Amino acid sequence: MSSEKTAITPTRAQDFPEWYQQVIKAADLAENSETRGCMVIKPWGYGIWELIQQQMDRMFKATGHQNAYFPLLIPLSYLEREAEHAEGFATECAVVTHHRLEAVKDEETGKTKMVPSGELAEPYVIRPTSETIIGAAFARWVQSYRDLPLLINQWANVMRWEMRPRMFLRTAEFLWQEGHTAHETKQEAIDETRQMHRVYEEFLRDHLAIPVIPGEKTENERFPGADMTLTVEAMVQDKKSIQAGTSHFLGQNFSKAQNICFTGRDGTQEFAYTTSWGVSTRMIGTLIMAHSDDDGLVLPPRVATQQIVILPITPKEDTKDAVLASCQALAETLRNQNFHGDPLRVLVDTRDLNGGVKKWEWVKKGVPIRIEIGPRDVESRKVCIQRRDQAVKDKEFADKEDFIRRASDLLGEIHKALLDKATQFRDENISKCGDLDEFHQHWSQDNPGWLLTPWAGSPDQEDVLSKQHKITIRCMPIDGQNGEEAACILTGKMTQARAIWGRSY
Amino acid sequence: MSSEKTAITPTRAQDFPEWYQQVIKAADLAENSETRGCMVIKPWGYGIWELIQQQMDRMFKATGHQNAYFPLLIPLSYLEREAEHAEGFATECAVVTHHRLEAVKDEETGKTKMVPSGELAEPYVIRPTSETIIGAAFARWVQSYRDLPLLINQWANVMRWEMRPRMFLRTAEFLWQEGHTAHETKQEAIDETRQMHRVYEEFLRDHLAIPVIPGEKTENERFPGADMTLTVEAMVQDKKSIQAGTSHFLGQNFSKAQNICFTGRDGTQEFAYTTSWGVSTRMIGTLIMAHSDDDGLVLPPRVATQQIVILPITPKEDTKDAVLASCQALAETLRNQNFHGDPLRVLVDTRDLNGGVKKWEWVKKGVPIRIEIGPRDVESRKVCIQRRDQAVKDKEFADKEDFIRRASDLLGEIHKALLDKATQFRDENISKCGDLDEFHQHWSQDNPGWLLTPWAGSPDQEDVLSKQHKITIRCMPIDGQNGEEAACILTGKMTQARAIWGRSY
Repeated sequence: MSSEKTAITPTRAQDFPEWYQQVIKAADLAENSETRGCMVIKPWGYGIWELIQQQMDRMFKATGHQNAYFPLLIPLSYLEREAEHAEGFATECAVVTHHRLEAVKDEETGKTKMVPSGELAEPYVIRPTSETIIGAAFARWVQSYRDLPLLINQWANVMRWEMRPRMFLRTAEFLWQEGHTAHETKQEAIDETRQMHRVYEEFLRDHLAIPVIPGEKTENERFPGADMTLTVEAMVQDKKSIQAGTSHFLGQNFSKAQNICFTGRDGTQEFAYTTSWGVSTRMIGTLIMAHSDDDGLVLPPRVATQQIVILPITPKEDTKDAVLASCQALAETLRNQNFHGDPLRVLVDTRDLNGGVKKWEWVKKGVPIRIEIGPRDVESRKVCIQRRDQAVKDKEFADKEDFIRRASDLLGEIHKALLDKATQFRDENISKCGDLDEFHQHWSQDNPGWLLTPWAGSPDQEDVLSKQHKITIRCMPIDGQNGEEAACILTGKMTQARAIWGRSY
Repeated sequence: MSSEKTAITPTRAQDFPEWYQQVIKAADLAENSETRGCMVIKPWGYGIWELIQQQMDRMFKATGHQNAYFPLLIPLSYLEREAEHAEGFATECAVVTHHRLEAVKDEETGKTKMVPSGELAEPYVIRPTSETIIGAAFARWVQSYRDLPLLINQWANVMRWEMRPRMFLRTAEFLWQEGHTAHETKQEAIDETRQMHRVYEEFLRDHLAIPVIPGEKTENERFPGADMTLTVEAMVQDKKSIQAGTSHFLGQNFSKAQNICFTGRDGTQEFAYTTSWGVSTRMIGTLIMAHSDDDGLVLPPRVATQQIVILPITPKEDTKDAVLASCQALAETLRNQNFHGDPLRVLVDTRDLNGGVKKWEWVKKGVPIRIEIGPRDVESRKVCIQRRDQAVKDKEFADKEDFIRRASDLLGEIHKALLDKATQFRDENISKCGDLDEFHQHWSQDNPGWLLTPWAGSPDQEDVLSKQHKITIRCMPIDGQNGEEAACILTGKMTQARAIWGRSY
């Protein structure tokens, strides 16, 4: 493989992190900006986010949630109310301290320049997450058990001042959704936390073709202020882990800090149980690292900005109009087909450019299906089908009518092929380990996979192992907590509990 | 009318601004937050915004625009590049000066508190609008005339530190879309500016049932840095004007300040011509003030979060199930009908509450059609139809099958009735005036309407008249610049130009 010419330099094997940056560039998904740690999401990348939003939003609404919008700026005093939460975000908050600019003359240069003016009595932080400001609203909205459950979601931008930004995966500003709910009982809140965890698992599998491991975070890795954090962990092609979404059971921690209380069925005042759950533009980084190859981006069909690109082959002027007309007619017909309830997204690339240049552009942009139609195909009513999940040189000729009937199924096949490949890769790279020597040895390899071990250690013991190998317990996988007893890899204590260890982004 | 009981206190006639606040409260659209000048948009209000977004986004895409996303924070130096622009927004910028918080001990109280820490070398402002940061990206993206036109839109939050906030109409943070485009020629950019101006006019008329006056702002009222600002002005029920959307031709002002230049067809370097255009959550304030009445919100059907609410009337336990089943079946059938291409939004209110309480809640929330079904209606296959644009006591009985067939048309009729009523009101309250004494006298009335006058005065002269009566030239209406010559109301100079004067929000 390494001797073949590839569209992306370096290849995954040569330098995975740099390959990732180059895929983003080649697919024109995003670019860095002059605002520290912030990116510009370009139309091809933003189109993916729009599709993620639309499809996920339907799942949220189907589970009874409503959207709302809360202020970007959080009064500093709000953040302070939940101490653990405040401490968790303190080192990465952008702080607004002034509300105007003033023109002053620079003594040295004599030029006028703008400086902050109008200092605020109380500074604001730009939301790193909205538990505190949404909690303040919940405290106003909840009076009686009849007001519960309160099931709210917000699509918004948030900001965490990242020291080592990486496009999509870790940016100072990112786009996300954050669900916030309040419940009458502990069990209802836990059920909600688990329900949204399942929604994320399902979304990643059925929309992004990413097979995640659902599990629970250990205490060390929990969201600041949560009693339980559930996560979906994706393995990407360098065998690292990406936390693709989290769902938190917050107990009564935030409701006590913010006074979200209600008159219960027996007339007494009670604190609500709350949850929060979120996924972000990080999912785009995850899907890039999960599926793309040395030729560029590979898009899962459901979130592909365009699913089918039709390339007219027009070698001669006298047949050009017929070819173009045939392509446009095919596109129109395809747009009347559905894939998972949405009309197919089809583009005819009529630009007056070299055919090879155009073809490679769509390869790099990851479009699931490319169709070529030339003068002879118009006569024979054939199309040339090329699938992005197969080698660039692979092609299949099919009757046009047959392709129209099959187009939606073909997208489904591509989705399945991506999911199967990613699942196989993941399964091949999770090893069971019950021996501490083997455990230590494992992490000295290049690009080690994940390890599944019996685990009954303390948070401190976990921390020692984590720091030693630059790993973390990614999660205590849900499938795997109730099996046979085995000796904890470190303490030797017999336990049913299992941990997945890995390196992560 | 004033002797009738109304759901909103005060009425429009008694205190229009307070009535507006009370309609928002009664319809549960939004509420103030503890972040200065910022509101929480509650689900019923946010639902309107989601519909506005979806429908407007289709219009933007149909005119060739693509969505993208740019950083929230603008380096201060970017803002300074276009002097007029920087000056225009300087007094209302939220400024980020620090990137972390630090816990310090308060000497007096002995308690720990959080203070801003990690001062930034260069402060950032939270975008009040994004010409400067998007322009910086355009400068990178545009190299050749082949890269033009560049047609970008962004859905985002922006912040302008308002001294007199009013929910939806003027809030420190608001949600909006901002289109930004770059073109090869001046004419193309002007055509784009006019096209989006027409899109806004059409959207307000055909989706919000608001008949706006499209026109051009005078130099005094232009967007800071623009060569031409087009506006759509809506008259609301106290006869004030709301600027509901603007479209700006920016000439080469921003492209020169930010070096958006390209190699032209003849090989020379040229500066692009740019435009920007935007509408915001202010449109929700506009539609409230345009259509609502003393019983609460009146929603135009296309942006109604629910278009039809079905209220089961269940006086007896033994017929309750049959009534509920009939209501649910009707809702399902209606959801398979379309209105302007979208499935009807129908809710069955099954809550175990007093029927009158439920009915009034939906009146106040502005749902276009309420349907009541009781036990006898189930047997006779009838429904009781109540229209929000008619008196609350008005009702019509119809055959259920007939109503199902007519439901979509009925929503269309309600839209038309709202538009006709608003158009009539507007036309009755725009007077022509050619006499300066009459002009002065007009503004001493309570709630004066708009005046249309011949105008050839200077910016300074306009300013004097504006300040004297707390009015502005809302626009030079597009229909009305090429009519007969008449004497300017102030200078007496003969002119074809006409100005519309009014008070505004």
